[in-house]
Amino acid sequence: MAARRVLKAVLVDLSGTLHVEDTAIPGAQEALKRLRNAPVVIRFVTNTTKECKRTLLERLRRLGFDISEDEIFTSLTAARNLVEQRNVRPLLLVDSSALSDFEGIATHSPNAVVIGLAPEHFNYQTMNEAFRLALDGAPIVAIHKARYYKKKDGLALGPGPFVTALEYATDTKATVVGKPEKTFFLEALRSTGCLPEEAVMIGDDCRDDVGGAQDSGMLGILVKTGKYRPGDEGKIQPGPHLTCESFPHAVDHILKDLI
Amino acid sequence: MAARRVLKAVLVDLSGTLHVEDTAIPGAQEALKRLRNAPVVIRFVTNTTKECKRTLLERLRRLGFDISEDEIFTSLTAARNLVEQRNVRPLLLVDSSALSDFEGIATHSPNAVVIGLAPEHFNYQTMNEAFRLALDGAPIVAIHKARYYKKKDGLALGPGPFVTALEYATDTKATVVGKPEKTFFLEALRSTGCLPEEAVMIGDDCRDDVGGAQDSGMLGILVKTGKYRPGDEGKIQPGPHLTCESFPHAVDHILKDLI
Repeated sequence: MAARRVLKAVLVDLSGTLHVEDTAIPGAQEALKRLRNAPVVIRFVTNTTKECKRTLLERLRRLGFDISEDEIFTSLTAARNLVEQRNVRPLLLVDSSALSDFEGIATHSPNAVVIGLAPEHFNYQTMNEAFRLALDGAPIVAIHKARYYKKKDGLALGPGPFVTALEYATDTKATVVGKPEKTFFLEALRSTGCLPEEAVMIGDDCRDDVGGAQDSGMLGILVKTGKYRPGDEGKIQPGPHLTCESFPHAVDHILKDLI
Repeated sequence: MAARRVLKAVLVDLSGTLHVEDTAIPGAQEALKRLRNAPVVIRFVTNTTKECKRTLLERLRRLGFDISEDEIFTSLTAARNLVEQRNVRPLLLVDSSALSDFEGIATHSPNAVVIGLAPEHFNYQTMNEAFRLALDGAPIVAIHKARYYKKKDGLALGPGPFVTALEYATDTKATVVGKPEKTFFLEALRSTGCLPEEAVMIGDDCRDDVGGAQDSGMLGILVKTGKYRPGDEGKIQPGPHLTCESFPHAVDHILKDLI
């Protein structure tokens, strides 16, 4: 029975779960405080290719969340960890606002490509530079492969199409590090010392948050805030461990039934 | 028996078959003259995304080939024909040197995307414009999908990766109009009034020239000039109708055995 697991770690999505843009989900700050009183390690996990940890942290604190920087694990963190593990020097095709998450990483004579959403780098010359590196064997690390995203003036290309362009040109596959990749969740857990079986993930994206976490061996709780649309829980098989109204309800369930 | 076919049309590749850059294949001009004395229609067919017919014609005439503009059929012609047949207004992502092949085509309020090798258009803003059109249902017409090509300073991205990026972003497939597509060969034949069974293709690219033509129902003759490398004839199944030293030998064979 899932409810008999010994829960030691809780992973929490940010946008759509704790807040929607500059508004906190009602009761979320207080629910987080209650969760902190339980014997669990907490990590805040998010797919971002533009916002460094510091920016995320500033917004969360402004909204009244009690969070420290080392509790945040993003797709940029995952990319940095991979670069460090492989000991490679990346050509960083990421937004300038994301560069601070790569501070201290050697980037001279690059022998790897890290690619996020970086419109200013998506021109022929820079794509060609990345292509030549990849053709020479440089691994391509994709922050994530989203097709597009919503901007104020309409839809706009995500990093996925440009990752796919390099994959096609070089007949190779990029290593994707963001949600819903299994490695993302395992890497997020690494610093907690907990096993996937001892963890639960709370998020508003059924596929990327809940499905990815459950594929990694964790429990997944879907919240009906943020990008949630009725019927989303049917998008994955098996379905979410639980679907509830919002983050505070998810915390209630964890404290009552999982610990 | 293939040799018993009644041959009425001969398709001839340009680069690598009649010439290599600014040098004609020895004897090719004279062989073309001999072919012109036979009762066959001739078409010169080539994959190009940068050179308009006029540029190609000028080079061929400079090299001493007796060719008229309406005998040339390129992947740009094929794209133009498709645009005319579908009665759409294309956003033309092609090199400025190729624009004259699209003279007279309406391009205001575009509802289609034509994409060739166009480094100056391969930036985020223009790719995004193409993406939004395609997402609204505009068909994507790809001149061809080459992964990369050789430049003096090394390999460089072809149009293929950027076509693939748009395909991935919109979850659709582009219509590819260049060799080795079957439609390319059939379209090249259209103005001749001949059937594929009555035609032979001569080229130096085993897959794109010979394989494509044979898949369309023509005979294919591979010449050992241009990009030919020993063993290329094994790249397609069934193999070429004939592999011979060069264009003059191919003409000898046609005049002796196919007419």
